[in-house]
Amino acid sequence: MAAASNFYSIVAGVGAGTGRSVAIKFAQTYPVALLARNPANYESIVKEINAAGGKAIGISTDVSSESSMKNAFAEIQKEFKGKNLAAAVYNVGGKFVRKPFLELSLEEYEAGYEANGKGFFLFAQAVLPGLLSSVPTSPHPPSLIITGATASLRGGANMSSFASGKFALRATGQSLAREFGPQGVHVAHAIIDGVIDIPRTKDWPVNGGVEGGKISADAIADSYWYLHTQPRSHFTQELDVRPYVEKF
Amino acid sequence: MAAASNFYSIVAGVGAGTGRSVAIKFAQTYPVALLARNPANYESIVKEINAAGGKAIGISTDVSSESSMKNAFAEIQKEFKGKNLAAAVYNVGGKFVRKPFLELSLEEYEAGYEANGKGFFLFAQAVLPGLLSSVPTSPHPPSLIITGATASLRGGANMSSFASGKFALRATGQSLAREFGPQGVHVAHAIIDGVIDIPRTKDWPVNGGVEGGKISADAIADSYWYLHTQPRSHFTQELDVRPYVEKF
Amino acid sequence: MAAASNFYSIVAGVGAGTGRSVAIKFAQTYPVALLARNPANYESIVKEINAAGGKAIGISTDVSSESSMKNAFAEIQKEFKGKNLAAAVYNVGGKFVRKPFLELSLEEYEAGYEANGKGFFLFAQAVLPGLLSSVPTSPHPPSLIITGATASLRGGANMSSFASGKFALRATGQSLAREFGPQGVHVAHAIIDGVIDIPRTKDWPVNGGVEGGKISADAIADSYWYLHTQPRSHFTQELDVRPYVEKF
Amino acid sequence: MAAASNFYSIVAGVGAGTGRSVAIKFAQTYPVALLARNPANYESIVKEINAAGGKAIGISTDVSSESSMKNAFAEIQKEFKGKNLAAAVYNVGGKFVRKPFLELSLEEYEAGYEANGKGFFLFAQAVLPGLLSSVPTSPHPPSLIITGATASLRGGANMSSFASGKFALRATGQSLAREFGPQGVHVAHAIIDGVIDIPRTKDWPVNGGVEGGKISADAIADSYWYLHTQPRSHFTQELDVRPYVEKF
Repeated sequence: MAAASNFYSIVAGVGAGTGRSVAIKFAQTYPVALLARNPANYESIVKEINAAGGKAIGISTDVSSESSMKNAFAEIQKEFKGKNLAAAVYNVGGKFVRKPFLELSLEEYEAGYEANGKGFFLFAQAVLPGLLSSVPTSPHPPSLIITGATASLRGGANMSSFASGKFALRATGQSLAREFGPQGVHVAHAIIDGVIDIPRTKDWPVNGGVEGGKISADAIADSYWYLHTQPRSHFTQELDVRPYVEKF
Repeated sequence: MAAASNFYSIVAGVGAGTGRSVAIKFAQTYPVALLARNPANYESIVKEINAAGGKAIGISTDVSSESSMKNAFAEIQKEFKGKNLAAAVYNVGGKFVRKPFLELSLEEYEAGYEANGKGFFLFAQAVLPGLLSSVPTSPHPPSLIITGATASLRGGANMSSFASGKFALRATGQSLAREFGPQGVHVAHAIIDGVIDIPRTKDWPVNGGVEGGKISADAIADSYWYLHTQPRSHFTQELDVRPYVEKF
Repeated sequence: MAAASNFYSIVAGVGAGTGRSVAIKFAQTYPVALLARNPANYESIVKEINAAGGKAIGISTDVSSESSMKNAFAEIQKEFKGKNLAAAVYNVGGKFVRKPFLELSLEEYEAGYEANGKGFFLFAQAVLPGLLSSVPTSPHPPSLIITGATASLRGGANMSSFASGKFALRATGQSLAREFGPQGVHVAHAIIDGVIDIPRTKDWPVNGGVEGGKISADAIADSYWYLHTQPRSHFTQELDVRPYVEKF
Repeated sequence: MAAASNFYSIVAGVGAGTGRSVAIKFAQTYPVALLARNPANYESIVKEINAAGGKAIGISTDVSSESSMKNAFAEIQKEFKGKNLAAAVYNVGGKFVRKPFLELSLEEYEAGYEANGKGFFLFAQAVLPGLLSSVPTSPHPPSLIITGATASLRGGANMSSFASGKFALRATGQSLAREFGPQGVHVAHAIIDGVIDIPRTKDWPVNGGVEGGKISADAIADSYWYLHTQPRSHFTQELDVRPYVEKF
């Protein structure tokens, strides 16, 4: 754990799965700010990191609210004054709605975009100036890493809410990769194609319940760290991950 | 022109280009309702169709407003009482914003989604019940045809607003194709990859100004009609179109 | 049927399905040369077209043999002396091998490429000079239309032979579209995603045996004719087709 | 370097770039067999690895020749008797032909497939039994890693030879991923989208000659090692890599 780094990192969308593993992974090198709507989602992680000699703060944030995001980033700037931003991870799932199209309310349909379109826009605008200013000094290229899903590539029946949000997220991520890559910021998009192995999915009968049939959140964290440490002569924009037994 | 059909059609997003050509094409077989925010965008087309012995109405509509859409479809239902819906075309471009990401306001970013995400959601929810009920009787499979763009497949630098909207539109279109295709409704998505040859683009120096270097709006209308007339044993979900000289 | 046109067409890969329907469709406008390895595959079609007042010839050809192709095109040139080539369709399926990878012989693996890589190369080299020389005079842009499959986009388990051939075919088709499109030749690729409704598949339990659950070969022919008649300001490079009930 | 491992690795397609870096990277953990047509391509690498305390052998091999491959694998089996295969990398570029389609000889067109279709088929059939038998014991999931290119996804003008080979390679790789993934073998495909920084490309004016404008071969080797060490609950099938300044 590395409380004393000159750099820090931010993870938006923290809970018991990918966000937790990513936070702990990045906290080994950088102090980390964790954003989640519900403090219960980050409190134990913040404790865990700080207890292990790292540095973490948690901020209750609604990523799709301009004012909430403004407050969160003001707090981050205060807490990490004098440090530069090395990595930002957008791992917001949002409300997952799966139902027949004609039964969707507008609010349900928009939930996908709120979390993955609007929320990512606000997050990216907040972190990119910091990432850009770290380009000359950061040990690894400053990185903006985005969590996608199967639905980033495919709109399925009853999936228009989630898929429209994830497609919008991918579109924006690609746009940023093409705009900010040449400026030295690494924008990468990971397509998480499978169920993540977390407490909530413990009893889900995924892939016949076989060992390794759900994605290890720690392995996702390793992949995000690997992406972050790629040199700028070798940026990955997109990669997929799935369990070895997953149909695709 | 066919004022007396038992079926009717709707075109959302009408102006001097694709919308006009599509309206005139479909009006040869079905009465048609034209939606555009600005009446100036449909008035001359409505006159042209009615003068030629067809039947058209225009309704000033903001597709991203629930109440405006509710009013529009109430008027359509009144005007075409007793007729069934054979085809609906979503051709809304929306406000096209192209600027560096950090200069975008939230409102500008969201303009893409407003037109192509939210607007299409409202449109699709309004037309699908009518299309479904026409399945047993419609001369061709009832069709929902969607206008996409280069940015439906690729997020370019400075293009996050438009691309996120067009990606969301494609995601929703795919979801609907997979949900409503098996129920007999044809949902098709056209990727219009190039500049359309309309008065506004007359002097644009596209593809060296060569003849045929801009896409004929009438040819797009022909392709939409071709899509509409495909039998249900042979549905195209997606096709691209571009001028012969277009780089891609 | 049009025996007297100044233009002619060629269809490679003729049998009871797509090839037959395409031949009959194009023969309504152009004399047509049909290529198939086995004369039984074209003889009845040739008779049918000629009896209906059209003009067709059949040539026993192995598309993956340089000498066989040379002979075939010499004969075509002799038969259609003075006419120009308006359309060429490559509809060769080849030997379909589906088995576990470690059980494939090299010959079986290569069957996919022989038919769809090498065969298409020989065909395209033979037809492109004729198509190019028709650009100024042809009523529609001279067209090279290619039959792809689900496996053009996706390599499935046990499918490496067929998929590698269809991927190679798509790669070559794209290369030609980008090289010859700007010269006025329309190169289009159709992804036929489903089982075609032909005598051989009559009893296949596809999509629950529902009416329209297999693709109409006549509808494919209509789509190829539609592609051929697109103006050069509006070329489709790729479209998919599938039955309304097909999972995708 | 690790001469004493119970496992070994194979790299096909070794020269001054990716192959060399990959060989040296994997040799830190496993003895490695290097295949190249020209011994000059591997001799110095073999010396370098052995001098550093690792274990490497080189075998002059034509990957598209059945008999040459049979000889090579017999020699590998003899040399690494008692060891199990942990990783196999297919990095064969083949003869790169870029010329107008109508100027290509059949042999030139087929060069792409020979190297990337047929050659990979022979390689994969030779290594998969060994990879499968290592599943229960290998420290990381046994891996088959494939080098793709920009042309794996896009057929460009004048590129039909190379693109048809790289498309076929990707098709076969996907087929194998879907067949052997569930059996525990990790099949991964890397799209190398840019010029690699090797002696031969030293003076190429790529991306304005900017530092980092060509891909570091060592970074590719790191990515292949990262892919190899992914746990089976988290397999990446495909990732892209390119310099930060590369247009895409």
